Amino acid sequence: MQDQLIQWRRWFHQHPELGFMEYYTTYTIGKELEALGFTVHIGREALASSARYGVPAPPLLHQQEKKASSLGVDADWMDKMRGGHTGLVATWDTGKEGEHKGFRFDIDALPIHETELEAHLPYSEGFVSSNPGVMHACGHDGHITIGLGLAHYIAAQPSELTGTFTLLFQPAEEGGRGAKAMVDKGWLTDVDSFYTSHLGITPMKVGTVAASVEGFLASTKLNVHFRGESSHAGMKPEDGRNALLAAATASTQLYTIPRHSEGPSRVNVGKLEAGNGRNIISDTGYLELETRGETGNINNFMLQEAKRIIHASAAMYNVEATIEFVGESQGIVCDEDMLSSIPLEEDSYMNQILTSAKVSGSEDASFMINEVQAHGGKATYMLFGTALPFNHHHPSFDFEEDALAVALETYIHILQGGTTT
Amino acid sequence: MQDQLIQWRRWFHQHPELGFMEYYTTYTIGKELEALGFTVHIGREALASSARYGVPAPPLLHQQEKKASSLGVDADWMDKMRGGHTGLVATWDTGKEGEHKGFRFDIDALPIHETELEAHLPYSEGFVSSNPGVMHACGHDGHITIGLGLAHYIAAQPSELTGTFTLLFQPAEEGGRGAKAMVDKGWLTDVDSFYTSHLGITPMKVGTVAASVEGFLASTKLNVHFRGESSHAGMKPEDGRNALLAAATASTQLYTIPRHSEGPSRVNVGKLEAGNGRNIISDTGYLELETRGETGNINNFMLQEAKRIIHASAAMYNVEATIEFVGESQGIVCDEDMLSSIPLEEDSYMNQILTSAKVSGSEDASFMINEVQAHGGKATYMLFGTALPFNHHHPSFDFEEDALAVALETYIHILQGGTTT
Amino acid sequence: MQDQLIQWRRWFHQHPELGFMEYYTTYTIGKELEALGFTVHIGREALASSARYGVPAPPLLHQQEKKASSLGVDADWMDKMRGGHTGLVATWDTGKEGEHKGFRFDIDALPIHETELEAHLPYSEGFVSSNPGVMHACGHDGHITIGLGLAHYIAAQPSELTGTFTLLFQPAEEGGRGAKAMVDKGWLTDVDSFYTSHLGITPMKVGTVAASVEGFLASTKLNVHFRGESSHAGMKPEDGRNALLAAATASTQLYTIPRHSEGPSRVNVGKLEAGNGRNIISDTGYLELETRGETGNINNFMLQEAKRIIHASAAMYNVEATIEFVGESQGIVCDEDMLSSIPLEEDSYMNQILTSAKVSGSEDASFMINEVQAHGGKATYMLFGTALPFNHHHPSFDFEEDALAVALETYIHILQGGTTT
Amino acid sequence: MQDQLIQWRRWFHQHPELGFMEYYTTYTIGKELEALGFTVHIGREALASSARYGVPAPPLLHQQEKKASSLGVDADWMDKMRGGHTGLVATWDTGKEGEHKGFRFDIDALPIHETELEAHLPYSEGFVSSNPGVMHACGHDGHITIGLGLAHYIAAQPSELTGTFTLLFQPAEEGGRGAKAMVDKGWLTDVDSFYTSHLGITPMKVGTVAASVEGFLASTKLNVHFRGESSHAGMKPEDGRNALLAAATASTQLYTIPRHSEGPSRVNVGKLEAGNGRNIISDTGYLELETRGETGNINNFMLQEAKRIIHASAAMYNVEATIEFVGESQGIVCDEDMLSSIPLEEDSYMNQILTSAKVSGSEDASFMINEVQAHGGKATYMLFGTALPFNHHHPSFDFEEDALAVALETYIHILQGGTTT
Repeated sequence: MQDQLIQWRRWFHQHPELGFMEYYTTYTIGKELEALGFTVHIGREALASSARYGVPAPPLLHQQEKKASSLGVDADWMDKMRGGHTGLVATWDTGKEGEHKGFRFDIDALPIHETELEAHLPYSEGFVSSNPGVMHACGHDGHITIGLGLAHYIAAQPSELTGTFTLLFQPAEEGGRGAKAMVDKGWLTDVDSFYTSHLGITPMKVGTVAASVEGFLASTKLNVHFRGESSHAGMKPEDGRNALLAAATASTQLYTIPRHSEGPSRVNVGKLEAGNGRNIISDTGYLELETRGETGNINNFMLQEAKRIIHASAAMYNVEATIEFVGESQGIVCDEDMLSSIPLEEDSYMNQILTSAKVSGSEDASFMINEVQAHGGKATYMLFGTALPFNHHHPSFDFEEDALAVALETYIHILQGGTTT
Repeated sequence: MQDQLIQWRRWFHQHPELGFMEYYTTYTIGKELEALGFTVHIGREALASSARYGVPAPPLLHQQEKKASSLGVDADWMDKMRGGHTGLVATWDTGKEGEHKGFRFDIDALPIHETELEAHLPYSEGFVSSNPGVMHACGHDGHITIGLGLAHYIAAQPSELTGTFTLLFQPAEEGGRGAKAMVDKGWLTDVDSFYTSHLGITPMKVGTVAASVEGFLASTKLNVHFRGESSHAGMKPEDGRNALLAAATASTQLYTIPRHSEGPSRVNVGKLEAGNGRNIISDTGYLELETRGETGNINNFMLQEAKRIIHASAAMYNVEATIEFVGESQGIVCDEDMLSSIPLEEDSYMNQILTSAKVSGSEDASFMINEVQAHGGKATYMLFGTALPFNHHHPSFDFEEDALAVALETYIHILQGGTTT
Repeated sequence: MQDQLIQWRRWFHQHPELGFMEYYTTYTIGKELEALGFTVHIGREALASSARYGVPAPPLLHQQEKKASSLGVDADWMDKMRGGHTGLVATWDTGKEGEHKGFRFDIDALPIHETELEAHLPYSEGFVSSNPGVMHACGHDGHITIGLGLAHYIAAQPSELTGTFTLLFQPAEEGGRGAKAMVDKGWLTDVDSFYTSHLGITPMKVGTVAASVEGFLASTKLNVHFRGESSHAGMKPEDGRNALLAAATASTQLYTIPRHSEGPSRVNVGKLEAGNGRNIISDTGYLELETRGETGNINNFMLQEAKRIIHASAAMYNVEATIEFVGESQGIVCDEDMLSSIPLEEDSYMNQILTSAKVSGSEDASFMINEVQAHGGKATYMLFGTALPFNHHHPSFDFEEDALAVALETYIHILQGGTTT
Repeated sequence: MQDQLIQWRRWFHQHPELGFMEYYTTYTIGKELEALGFTVHIGREALASSARYGVPAPPLLHQQEKKASSLGVDADWMDKMRGGHTGLVATWDTGKEGEHKGFRFDIDALPIHETELEAHLPYSEGFVSSNPGVMHACGHDGHITIGLGLAHYIAAQPSELTGTFTLLFQPAEEGGRGAKAMVDKGWLTDVDSFYTSHLGITPMKVGTVAASVEGFLASTKLNVHFRGESSHAGMKPEDGRNALLAAATASTQLYTIPRHSEGPSRVNVGKLEAGNGRNIISDTGYLELETRGETGNINNFMLQEAKRIIHASAAMYNVEATIEFVGESQGIVCDEDMLSSIPLEEDSYMNQILTSAKVSGSEDASFMINEVQAHGGKATYMLFGTALPFNHHHPSFDFEEDALAVALETYIHILQGGTTT
């Protein structure tokens, strides 16, 4: 099946779409799954519309919707997905009693211009992004591929399978924007065991699998809009209400939030844009920022401090600040033993299973993992090793396609056994 | 002649071009002056190439050059102007002994989207900008018009005219970028009396003329580029060198430069752009700023402080700062008596001449005025009254076209008499 | 009389007392004036208790009161002055019709350790401060002396004197704390002409008198107390509410208040004290600051901005800020012609009278001058020239004692003539 | 022996002395140990003079030396200790082959005014500090007591003791100032096993012993002096070089040092003093600060960032900064098994031994522990449980005196056995 995996991966790599605009991606996955016999839920059936974070502005959505239609997405699919309701949930019932297993694959790409150099395989092999400025630079093309591979295996109805399966193809993982909307729709409330995974992240060779991770930080993503009053900087400096300075002050001050004694925390302002012209007191300021914490408690501390600092910075210059929540993820504690029953055989793609790997960063799969565990289920986040010539989110990011077979083999073992064997 | 003035003004208003890209404007003025018999100097004959500040980037210039060609500008004119060598100098010798008089008219427009509302005369009368995002919002369309009117009067060779005349149609006044390049070419070294002017600025009725101004501040315009090192804000915050914070810190700190006891000073950061994405320690920061001072000494104090603060802000975050000088103007002391011999007659457009008007802001005509005075000549900056429904640089800026005749009449009086009568 | 002037000056120089603690000084002046026949008003008769700014803390007052008693100040005087009610008003009626003239002399010293070097005349001549850490470093010892000289002249009842005289010996000029309390008591409401003065300030030779000044800025003096919550910086950094950072942030931010287009403004934080120990998040912060402006309007702008910035800085760190008003002075416009009738004779100490001198800084005599002018009187602030080896407020400050005779002669001319001759 | 322990503890509690000024304390301990037969090393024999951090200024030392003499400290002891050479090392040789065991007890008090309330046992029982403003608020009075108890046990020469013992009574633990000086004198180079301890710290009941700790942070203590130039804030603001603003800016900016991904870090400015008077641009600024990190590497990162920020803050205002190192401590990794052979018997004071306890904060015993381990020895830092009505360093700090017997019993077990049984 390895050829098929590579073919899929390259197709999705060539057709990247940004979060909540994965119209063509969702449609392509959905048609495949329907053909296999899965029950497919899309649009507002798949996710809770109001629980989505950071949905793009209507004109942007509209433009992508037109493009998807022109690429051949059916009108009835478009009707359901319109307005950023991408992603899908596919369910399968073996008809035999057994566990309800949940699997999640994230499907969105990043706003990055992909490298066009011979040394970059997607370019030299001709499957570089066909969507300028958008790129699968975090391996989600591989994640979709693994999901499709798993679906094909299930649909082949091997006799050993029991119970039911839910496959979540989640939109908008980047920025922590899509997972909660699927959780809020209720898909995870009676899942017994839940699995999701990432290619790469921690340096491990192809063939190595980490059964769980520790270190994902809870995180909140915010945009801030400052609104002041402009004035001529030479003629009437005293009439301005300087939104540029409010944004600048908030930026430096946010980094003064104290360290927390209970564990790691983070804050970052990653973007600042303010002002119009050199000789005008600026009436606008804009920030993109995030807080993180090892626990929800620590992240919440960071968030509350950040909000106070932002409003105080606005007050400092007599301007108004509006804080917009655009994404969120939680910390997680994986069940570490969920791959413990998997045997390593001589001819397998897998050749080492680590109990746990240390990571950092944040992931909105955390909402799903915590939801499953809150209802008594078990859940884990796995990693599949691959050499990485460039880091995730780099314009030259690429992974070893051999890792796809390792991942699929792992998921097939999970289907067969899981935590109960 | 008033109809002709209005016609010219509206034509230039409809064809605005940004500083150092006034190809079509320069060509239009130049062809008119050549037809009248003026000797016209363009390109590197008109200005010292390396003394220009803030010339737009080559791709932008190239784009405008192509556009100008497509609008019909002759190839040999384009060859001389290419690369941002716009503006022109036109000379006339009466053949009779007398003063050498210099006149300067600025010709550039602003990066502003012009209002499209019925209440806005240029829109309702159909001469709104045909160049989207560019607008004559500071009255330079009127200044060109006055210059053309003056040239027509001179070309009519009235018997009373003596001496020689130099008319400078200066590019890129906005941002203080073009005057010094004309000065450095030597056009002002033997001018006996020099006149330039602005429509509006100080609230005065149509018909009122201010013979001089006081209060223009010396000013320096700077762009600053900060270059740091990016890093993942969650995984490796300690590896970043934060250029966003350097730019933010410089911004707030610049405003802490002390007041100067010898007179007014100003500093403003009018634009700040930094960062790429929320979860990345930013490796770039960019500022547009200006300093001002009542005297060159005060402005220099502001500038030296600003430079130190910018470099210290960079050092604070271990990033590099590059400071780019993009414009400059000086303070001026006008000769106040240069209109003193002009009579106010019953049927004249002028009905009041004020000795001096209080202004603020900055003007690069200051370089010309100071040059003339340094060589023993006399010089002034005049204002022509007009009601202003909206301030200069506003998307709905407009002036009373009656003011054009007032201005032309004043200049004709100057031609006839000047300081020596 | 010159010997007497020097003797007085040296005695007061040797016995300096800080503002609102000039018990011994007031008593010494008062007893002298009573002996001359003046009606002397002290304590709450002289000033409005609640209109005093920045009265020292009770224990400090108490200590100085005990000291004054031990130096021989009568118990009934002490009873009236207790609690910081120092200074006095002395009135004289010639019994003849005429102007009501007001004169003000400030009497307080500064918290400065006086130099003990041979080169410092007060030390080498043995009249250095006998009150360690307190010094007449602004010439108020000379001002008292001039006042006493004037009183002696009045008491000699020369026949040419007419009208009534009010002599205000004002406490606590430093910091702008005492003048308003005398004004609020009503002493200036029917004064026809008012005179006060300073030794030095502007560089002028002995013998030169400036009849008026321009440039005193309106000013407000504030202390700020920040109160946060301490915490161990290593163990529980997140529990602190950092008052040190609030004070530091307020300090830097206060300097970012925009320049005002209508005239000069100032802001300064002259003292910052915060924190307890290196490893403790600080729960206290303290600032001493001042705002200034050419007009009351400009100073008020500075003050309102300062208050907002202080409260925003407190909010930034979740601490409380209390703002205490401790002094105030106003801008003034002197009547410039009040010395215009004074003749310069060959044998006079005065040898030049300037119409006006340029100063900066602030003075609470402004309250008196504005009060007199508001009621239709005329008022001025004069300067008497003297060489100054060191600036005002320097530990080695001293002035030329010859300037005392110049000043007294000027005041005697004023007594004789004034604005009406 | 419990009565004796309590008696000692209360005596030392009543006679607290600050770091490097423990003249009377050292003398009292030393005389006791000499009487017991220990060889006692004091002054420059006990510690390397130049390796001490943060020695108080000579006038302060001199004052305390006079006081110690007046309290009866022998002149020859004073001669050796003069100049801040306090603390002592006492050695004992059993004459039998065996391990060289080292023990360290810190002896300094804190600059805190002790509570005088009935609810505070030292007050109600009459052993409150007799040295106003100085207090044993961290239990070092108890530590000395444990050391004396241990010495008495050793001197009783029980037959089971073998090998040699070194008891270090260390000065100036607060601020991490004294330990390194004893290490540099070479006392720890051939110690086989090393023990030191603290009362309290982690919440544990009396009777509970933690055999080791984890979590002490490496730390560096700095003072910073900023030197600028003063100027009159109203008259010549542009002439000042503002050291107050440099200190304030450094303070806020220091908190912006990024979090470190490898582990906890800290920074704190605990004291800021700047400026002279309200209307003077400040020419002085002073900071007391510290950095911390879980590892030496992390602390070093914090330190290097701090130094750059301090110098950049100085450059920002054109002032000079001098950084003074005044204390240091390292991170440690205890040998956890050093109490593993101690039996818990029914009648013992100890009733629970935890392998390890989590702490934070910093300790300069780290220098000793790292030195012993670097030479192949084993070392640990123990905790003895006690209820704490108020935290360490609180004016009402007190501990349960029953904990002293628990500690002594533990140390006696160590003497008898240690790591080799």
